[in-house]
Amino acid sequence: MNDELKQAALDLHERLRGKIDVQPRMDVSSMRDLSLMYTPGVGYVSSEIAEYPERVDDLTWRKNAVAVVSDGTAVLGLGDIGPAAALPVMEGKCVIFKRFAGVNAVPIVLGTKDPDEIVRTVTAIAPGFGAIQLEDISAPRCFIIEERLINELRIPVMHDDQHGTAIVVLAGLLNALTLAGKNIEHIRVVCSGAGAAGTAIAKLLRVVGVRCIILADRQGAIWEGRPGLNDEKKKLAAMTNPDKERGTLGDMLRGADVLIGISGPGTVSEDMVVSMNPQPIIFALANPVPEIMPDRARAAGAMLIATGRSDTPNQVNNALCYPGLFRGMLDHNVMRVTDDIKIRAARAIAAMVPDPTPERFIPSIFDDGLHTAVAASVRS
Amino acid sequence: MNDELKQAALDLHERLRGKIDVQPRMDVSSMRDLSLMYTPGVGYVSSEIAEYPERVDDLTWRKNAVAVVSDGTAVLGLGDIGPAAALPVMEGKCVIFKRFAGVNAVPIVLGTKDPDEIVRTVTAIAPGFGAIQLEDISAPRCFIIEERLINELRIPVMHDDQHGTAIVVLAGLLNALTLAGKNIEHIRVVCSGAGAAGTAIAKLLRVVGVRCIILADRQGAIWEGRPGLNDEKKKLAAMTNPDKERGTLGDMLRGADVLIGISGPGTVSEDMVVSMNPQPIIFALANPVPEIMPDRARAAGAMLIATGRSDTPNQVNNALCYPGLFRGMLDHNVMRVTDDIKIRAARAIAAMVPDPTPERFIPSIFDDGLHTAVAASVRS
Repeated sequence: MNDELKQAALDLHERLRGKIDVQPRMDVSSMRDLSLMYTPGVGYVSSEIAEYPERVDDLTWRKNAVAVVSDGTAVLGLGDIGPAAALPVMEGKCVIFKRFAGVNAVPIVLGTKDPDEIVRTVTAIAPGFGAIQLEDISAPRCFIIEERLINELRIPVMHDDQHGTAIVVLAGLLNALTLAGKNIEHIRVVCSGAGAAGTAIAKLLRVVGVRCIILADRQGAIWEGRPGLNDEKKKLAAMTNPDKERGTLGDMLRGADVLIGISGPGTVSEDMVVSMNPQPIIFALANPVPEIMPDRARAAGAMLIATGRSDTPNQVNNALCYPGLFRGMLDHNVMRVTDDIKIRAARAIAAMVPDPTPERFIPSIFDDGLHTAVAASVRS
Repeated sequence: MNDELKQAALDLHERLRGKIDVQPRMDVSSMRDLSLMYTPGVGYVSSEIAEYPERVDDLTWRKNAVAVVSDGTAVLGLGDIGPAAALPVMEGKCVIFKRFAGVNAVPIVLGTKDPDEIVRTVTAIAPGFGAIQLEDISAPRCFIIEERLINELRIPVMHDDQHGTAIVVLAGLLNALTLAGKNIEHIRVVCSGAGAAGTAIAKLLRVVGVRCIILADRQGAIWEGRPGLNDEKKKLAAMTNPDKERGTLGDMLRGADVLIGISGPGTVSEDMVVSMNPQPIIFALANPVPEIMPDRARAAGAMLIATGRSDTPNQVNNALCYPGLFRGMLDHNVMRVTDDIKIRAARAIAAMVPDPTPERFIPSIFDDGLHTAVAASVRS
């Protein structure tokens, strides 16, 4: 199966030699065409923008163009594989942006890992883009890079591995809690993994009323005062794990209602699932191999299971969110991705499955109206 | 006429809202499609590139992708109008790249004018591109930026306002000299303008055997030892104006065979043309208004006239060169734009008009086979 997929993926990419093209939006078949879209006619267009800067959005592609930026330090589950190896993933994002929301997205892969340099570079290229999507940048660098760019630029900047994931997890969780009959204020949520996604999930779940969230990294539970925490994890410790519980991931999962795995393959055992509260909800999102395979989780009593994989039900796929979200931000001149916007987007995604079942409590990327609903949620 | 062109150009741009689109090169209509071009399949592609870096050219768009980079400091004849106002020009270049040579070109306009910052930015984004075209960057900054990027990067970097112009001027000049029966080693060439284009033209003409080239800027002829020259003009002075002639543009033009205007409207009078050698050759390239209008130059005795305008014969248009040149460099893995490559490209363009006449000694961008001939010249 994996060998077949690998070969088919390599064949496809080798045949295409690039999954995207830049295409003219007009014919150029006469000197007249040339003189309108290029010199001398374009000079009048440039002069118009020089005089009335806001006209750039009427006269160029800026307002429908997104830079998809990665330094290749945290690509899928593959880690720091560099900018060239990140390029096929960014191209894939660009395909999805156009296919599902009509957004022109350009892959920009960076030959630097220095946060200052990344902030400078993205700031320098920003005038030609209506929004910036950051991708596959490792934690904790991603936090400071995103924060500084948000403050620096007057266009939306979103690190998708953080917020795209958090929004879709929240969407799935809202439907899962309905199915399980659990109240969001009383659940115990444990995250296996405290990187980019775990951090953003914890922050967003707190905003929507989850009181008890515990994150665990390779050293176990994160608690306020644990020696050796970096700055970001210190902040995280202060806002999670209210009783400063200490122990392993397994220890934390005892009596938990929800497990959100954003770590790596095989970190969750069947015994851990058995130790959770009745009707456990499992988001095992490591890709391509989840923290626990769905069949084993189900055998251990999991009621509701989501993964990051397209070949099992209830896929937590950032692509449910970002095409519509950026479409909406561009269309409605939104400058910042606020918590309100994230929550409205999550509710819009959840509402695409009005009658959730264990087999389907997260919509499919192909569902009619999903992306327009997400886009509309930005304003409403 | 200009009012009509202005309105038509603005209307076109307003209707299109961007002259280019990013388009998928594949259908995405099933989970299978998604799983091949995005996760999980794309993970195998990324791993392949991480392991075998040269595979990036088989598996991504890199080898057919060019960044068209400008800081908006020298846009057409409009000067320093900034990155947003430069964007329609860069989009136009991207249209031409695809329309005439199948190259995927991306407009990158920079919110910085600092040469160090520009070099850092272009270096940072370079891993995703097969070549860099620099555009509309003011002199003398453009020289140092281009030189540093050429040394820094292992992909071709070319400032089109310098070398694209120089190549097409040389192409036109080769045919014009044949028509006028003049020997390239014995002509006197005067350039009105000593910026990016003038500098590159002077350098290239020297390489092909022109001995007497004099450049004039607003202070008149540039001669070795003239007070107040910047570093670039000092170098220029050392390699041109062999007899250290001093005087105005008009003084220099007396007895000249060729005038190359890359300055501004109206800098050349009919009297100046009258004072040139018999069968004068006039390249009046200021855009949209030339140094002298063709009808006035002709009335003053000019035999062969080229302009930068699409509505008069013999247009010196960089777009005759750069689509094919980049196509050739990408296809043949060329790392640097050498003088040899420039000369071969100029000869390929000139050869598109095997029987030159005063009405046609420079080909049209629409001529069948032009761009493939330029591309082929890179290797031959």
